Amino acid sequence: MKKGIFSLEMKVRDYECDMQGRVNNAVYQNYLEHARHEFLLSKGINFAEVTKRGVNLVVIRAELDYKLPLTSGEVFVVTLGLERISPLRFVFNQAIKRVSDQKLVLTAKIIATGINERGRPELPPEITNLLSD
Amino acid sequence: MKKGIFSLEMKVRDYECDMQGRVNNAVYQNYLEHARHEFLLSKGINFAEVTKRGVNLVVIRAELDYKLPLTSGEVFVVTLGLERISPLRFVFNQAIKRVSDQKLVLTAKIIATGINERGRPELPPEITNLLSD
Amino acid sequence: MKKGIFSLEMKVRDYECDMQGRVNNAVYQNYLEHARHEFLLSKGINFAEVTKRGVNLVVIRAELDYKLPLTSGEVFVVTLGLERISPLRFVFNQAIKRVSDQKLVLTAKIIATGINERGRPELPPEITNLLSD
Amino acid sequence: MKKGIFSLEMKVRDYECDMQGRVNNAVYQNYLEHARHEFLLSKGINFAEVTKRGVNLVVIRAELDYKLPLTSGEVFVVTLGLERISPLRFVFNQAIKRVSDQKLVLTAKIIATGINERGRPELPPEITNLLSD
Repeated sequence: MKKGIFSLEMKVRDYECDMQGRVNNAVYQNYLEHARHEFLLSKGINFAEVTKRGVNLVVIRAELDYKLPLTSGEVFVVTLGLERISPLRFVFNQAIKRVSDQKLVLTAKIIATGINERGRPELPPEITNLLSD
Repeated sequence: MKKGIFSLEMKVRDYECDMQGRVNNAVYQNYLEHARHEFLLSKGINFAEVTKRGVNLVVIRAELDYKLPLTSGEVFVVTLGLERISPLRFVFNQAIKRVSDQKLVLTAKIIATGINERGRPELPPEITNLLSD
Repeated sequence: MKKGIFSLEMKVRDYECDMQGRVNNAVYQNYLEHARHEFLLSKGINFAEVTKRGVNLVVIRAELDYKLPLTSGEVFVVTLGLERISPLRFVFNQAIKRVSDQKLVLTAKIIATGINERGRPELPPEITNLLSD
Repeated sequence: MKKGIFSLEMKVRDYECDMQGRVNNAVYQNYLEHARHEFLLSKGINFAEVTKRGVNLVVIRAELDYKLPLTSGEVFVVTLGLERISPLRFVFNQAIKRVSDQKLVLTAKIIATGINERGRPELPPEITNLLSD
């Protein structure tokens, strides 16, 4: 049961490149997170507001396969699909493609859940609705 | 003698916000740098290539006036004007404005120069040309 | 009226270096902020707790003079002195020195204040106490 | 055949925390990378120098299991063990533990290789030596 296909175009910024002249490994997680939050926003879910209400949406596992490095100035697209994998867990299947040649830069599987103010797993209702669409 | 007016629209990404829920002070320097490099690119000057050739364009002084904090999801514009202030030094006068209400978020004066491989001040020819336009 | 002298030793991490192989300009602001928060902590003031109570300590102006770049693996010391400059404003005079040769890497003047939940300038009592010591 | 056990103590810096008041997911990759580079250094291998010689040590897969979030000011230890998994690939088994209660914060499996200037897999001799110790 796939929920949502979404894509976001971005461009490498020079400060994201490290001494190898390539986007640093950790920065790809920033790109992926930004695409997830923009996807949620496109569904009417504001991550910052959910956080203020006391529910933390958190990543519990990330699998990242680095295929090709991005370098200075390159334009890329982050795509994502969302799937529920258990009552309280969902997975974002994400990929990054370089626009110039459509080559795959990275694939990722990001497993997430929600944690309420008492530290217990709990999905906010808007996420539950999104997952059961 | 003002050289160039340039503006770049960007959007706050959630990972750029700190525990205050606002864009962290240091991140504005990232925004400003990215706008400078995009400006240079619009003039045919590729920062990464200049760096590979062994000339480092470096900031020697930054003055930043923080007026208003940006928060999650806000859209803003970074503007810049470029001026030569001495044979080997130039200044970027930069500002960040929030798009929703046109309020000023930050103004900055970034003074820069070039350093060659022997560690001596030297401007690459394309920067000299740009400054004498 | 100088308030407090403080120093903190740190070491450059490779992910902090950019394609020039040097610590990126914005990262020095991270170093400076970390030293300020560690200084406050040494005086019994926890930045995160002050933030949770609804008072944001904010930088309103930063002046940074870049003297020498730090590169991979270098050890440095961040020093700071604190001074009140008006009823609601205080300044951190900061410097970064490379340990190996005691050369000055950067000097900075960071002007800060406090903003309460209604968006008005207000210093938390522990900061007021610290400044009037 | 396990190669090397290494541990590095670090402390959360406030700018590493995001609007949830917790260390942002991507930042753990910074911590892990820094520990790997410090480990290599302890074995006489300088990452920056290897990079300058034209060999890029690159991560090809990262698996991260987030167990517990780190927050402002917490002290933690990053540990690692190194294992060769094929002629050209090696894996860092890494973990992050909170010092105060020894609780596990994150476990990670980071698979890496070397890429030479022609874009071909190649391990620098010092890595080959390290792996065959």
